[in-house]
Amino acid sequence: MINAVGRDIPDEILRKYGKEPFRGVHYRDNKPYKKAEVTAHGMVDPMRNKMVSSIREAMEKCNAHDGMVFSFHHHFRDGDHIVNMVMQTAFEMGLKDLTVCASSLGAAHSVVADLIEKGIVTGIQTSGIRDRIGEAVSYGKLKTPAIIRSHGGRVRAIEEGDVHIDIAFIGAPTADEYGNLRAVGGKSDCGVLSYSMVDAKYADYTVAITDTLVPFPNYPPSIPMTDVDYVCVVDEIGNPAKIASNVIRMTQDVRELKMAEDCAKVMAATPFFKDGFSFQTGGGGASLAVTRFLEPLMEERNIKMSFAIGGITKPMCDLLEKGYIRTVVDAQCFDKTAIESVKNDPRHYEISTSEYANPLNKGAFVNKLDFVILGALEIDTGFNVNVTTGSDGVLRGAPGGHPDTAAGSRCSIIVAPLIRGRIPTVVEGVVNVTTPGEAVDVLVTDYGVAINPKRKDLIECLSASGLHIVTIQELLSTALNIVGKPEPIHFEDDIVGIIESRDGTIMDVVRRIKPQTEIHEIIG
Amino acid sequence: MINAVGRDIPDEILRKYGKEPFRGVHYRDNKPYKKAEVTAHGMVDPMRNKMVSSIREAMEKCNAHDGMVFSFHHHFRDGDHIVNMVMQTAFEMGLKDLTVCASSLGAAHSVVADLIEKGIVTGIQTSGIRDRIGEAVSYGKLKTPAIIRSHGGRVRAIEEGDVHIDIAFIGAPTADEYGNLRAVGGKSDCGVLSYSMVDAKYADYTVAITDTLVPFPNYPPSIPMTDVDYVCVVDEIGNPAKIASNVIRMTQDVRELKMAEDCAKVMAATPFFKDGFSFQTGGGGASLAVTRFLEPLMEERNIKMSFAIGGITKPMCDLLEKGYIRTVVDAQCFDKTAIESVKNDPRHYEISTSEYANPLNKGAFVNKLDFVILGALEIDTGFNVNVTTGSDGVLRGAPGGHPDTAAGSRCSIIVAPLIRGRIPTVVEGVVNVTTPGEAVDVLVTDYGVAINPKRKDLIECLSASGLHIVTIQELLSTALNIVGKPEPIHFEDDIVGIIESRDGTIMDVVRRIKPQTEIHEIIG
Repeated sequence: MINAVGRDIPDEILRKYGKEPFRGVHYRDNKPYKKAEVTAHGMVDPMRNKMVSSIREAMEKCNAHDGMVFSFHHHFRDGDHIVNMVMQTAFEMGLKDLTVCASSLGAAHSVVADLIEKGIVTGIQTSGIRDRIGEAVSYGKLKTPAIIRSHGGRVRAIEEGDVHIDIAFIGAPTADEYGNLRAVGGKSDCGVLSYSMVDAKYADYTVAITDTLVPFPNYPPSIPMTDVDYVCVVDEIGNPAKIASNVIRMTQDVRELKMAEDCAKVMAATPFFKDGFSFQTGGGGASLAVTRFLEPLMEERNIKMSFAIGGITKPMCDLLEKGYIRTVVDAQCFDKTAIESVKNDPRHYEISTSEYANPLNKGAFVNKLDFVILGALEIDTGFNVNVTTGSDGVLRGAPGGHPDTAAGSRCSIIVAPLIRGRIPTVVEGVVNVTTPGEAVDVLVTDYGVAINPKRKDLIECLSASGLHIVTIQELLSTALNIVGKPEPIHFEDDIVGIIESRDGTIMDVVRRIKPQTEIHEIIG
Repeated sequence: MINAVGRDIPDEILRKYGKEPFRGVHYRDNKPYKKAEVTAHGMVDPMRNKMVSSIREAMEKCNAHDGMVFSFHHHFRDGDHIVNMVMQTAFEMGLKDLTVCASSLGAAHSVVADLIEKGIVTGIQTSGIRDRIGEAVSYGKLKTPAIIRSHGGRVRAIEEGDVHIDIAFIGAPTADEYGNLRAVGGKSDCGVLSYSMVDAKYADYTVAITDTLVPFPNYPPSIPMTDVDYVCVVDEIGNPAKIASNVIRMTQDVRELKMAEDCAKVMAATPFFKDGFSFQTGGGGASLAVTRFLEPLMEERNIKMSFAIGGITKPMCDLLEKGYIRTVVDAQCFDKTAIESVKNDPRHYEISTSEYANPLNKGAFVNKLDFVILGALEIDTGFNVNVTTGSDGVLRGAPGGHPDTAAGSRCSIIVAPLIRGRIPTVVEGVVNVTTPGEAVDVLVTDYGVAINPKRKDLIECLSASGLHIVTIQELLSTALNIVGKPEPIHFEDDIVGIIESRDGTIMDVVRRIKPQTEIHEIIG
């Protein structure tokens, strides 16, 4: 069935997963729905305790068996030890047919890649899917299609029961012996535990893994004891150096700086740029630089930001300290400055990922965003954005909060160079749709600014801004003139990934890539 | 069927409510159970807003109709305006067959009493049931039995779906237009909103009612926007003078002071009285005085309390300020000092009532209590305590946290005078069992200290304490010698109330009282 972004979603996929095709960003607004039934085990006896001596003992107490779904958060980013420790234990216990439901997966998770190759991990549900795991899935090594969701969409999926978590494993920088977990105060601080809050509430069992046991009560908790079954102490839950790099690279790239400046000018030209506006930006070079260009514009107009959301980085914390931002709400810390800020600055709050972006709760922060600055691997003439697959068709990205913030914000701005290497960003049709064009308002490139034709209000206010306004078709022509038409990618019929819309409808499917040798045979 | 405290629970009650008789305090420990499915309406469209112009408009938007269950919190205590405003509106809308599911009901709720008399309110689920409402129920004016629960039991009941809340009405001292609610910062601060947290999560609709609208985001919220459907601003949500009296009366009663001192001595004679102990006390005269007697004992031994729970009052906040307590966790503020403390002292935390006392979550604070000091209307020779019905059989009390803290704590101490007026506290059999003797360890009276025979450890350490140790049978004999055997109360067969155990089994039933005139005829 062709969905609202023109992608053909096979009927058997819709049937098998009990899903509808994507029907537009507001399709499920105000419609009643049921959340999943939660199973729990009451801690009635005060003399019973939660401490276990090993991950294996925790898994045995949680009745770990074949076919289970294990969940994880990615607040430790490239420094995470938890996923590998748990999956290695599962392997040693001889478990098989396992699904990993993580808020994101990346370079740290080599054991998962190994277990996909071995056929032991047979399901992946994640936002980010990259490196060896992305390749394994793209070349068809995973037995079931990987399910790829935005951060908000993951919360929704867990709450609606699209995925049932058997055991949630939560790496916690600090824990007390009754399972009050905090994201700070230990050897591997990560600032917030936002992603794991929903796991703790919906999993049959929740196991906390920490390397820093502290006295009861470990307050205020990110995850309360009321959601935690077992507590396990290990030597090291993460590598602090890789959890947060100390210094974020500030771009010196002239092209990136020019785009960032244009992006700030776009913002300043809209009526939303006034006292009390709200803002989110990603961690990329150009996006981060936007924050720097905002400061003089805010100074000039004598306005302040009401709140900033993140992925929080040093530039945002600097604006908070200088008084340009009233409140920072934080679902992920990208660097050490952010971790220190959320620990020490009472105006910097940890929020759940549901509060951040869940489309089906009763109102998430993304709905209150005036501006979001986002990136793109590809964007097509319908303003549909791909941040999941590379132009070679291999999974190498993450929806993250992209579809959530784009849909919620008053003005979503994509910043991307028209061409990277010899690869165009603006294309006739994206390999996969991650964020629908309906939710994308402006594209800032190094060859001009294109505005989504449906945003007549923005076309009007930006036409007088002095910025170089172009149509997206003009950008496409420019790209074609420079690098020519890209070679088509060759896919097999089988589906290796499903890109879910944040509301649970199906946005797109990812098909298996033909191995290079086969492609050369076809072409040759 | 006779339950574990010897009460005969009619089979038709067990069948009708799908319940088991009470089988002992740890009966449901570690047994899996299912939580209720939650229905919600997603706020996907960021342009939709939550503000309504009146309670009536909110009710209409929530499709209010006959037969519904409305829920309320009692953090405004005797100063509450919310229950009456909502129920008056329901009456004006012509609704009938309504159930009021409140965390407690009291003198402020005259409209509910009126609507019971009128036959419009036909169900009551509450902890406290007193005054006109208690009398109306006791004399059979309510069409269905009132269901009486402890604070922890209420959370469990809502989470398990024993009661399904159609609309939760939450009075909020401050709110923003997207429904982030705080217990402080307005005209009628109440300190914490602990009781209403579960309502907001499980109700089909949640309506916030405030008299102080503040800018978005109202952070950190007691109740987040993600759980709130509508926000309504009214002139006045409460009467601050009655929400919290400024000064708690410190008893000068010699008998109360002597019992309080003995109570502190009991604590000090146990091995639990050591650095890091935890403590809760009620708001009564003797209970409050215990806190004062603790200070010199803690000073003498050079020990500190790890945490105190409440019902928080000034004496507890004073100990926090002086450094005798490391952490206060607060599910209810009893006075203005407590409200100011939770607002300003970072070591004083708001907690949910689930975190406080829900028996079926994965570990509540009550499980970590060393000592709790509690009152009693009656206590029998099996140490069963009644805090629900008076010796005349009329509903005039509240389980509150009594059964929760008694069951969770290492050492639960009841403080009560042997005789009040001409009415004995120690009796052969209590009118109703609220807290089972299994969970009650020590009784401190003005005629000696009785220890539950099952606590051999306490008998041993208290025998050397110099306290006047007696058996509870001896106390009963003393009481009988002084005031004689009390007249039996005359009940009808019909059941007007059900006292649920905190785990959802049935502890006792309350029967309809014969009108006084009839009793005189029988006696005469």
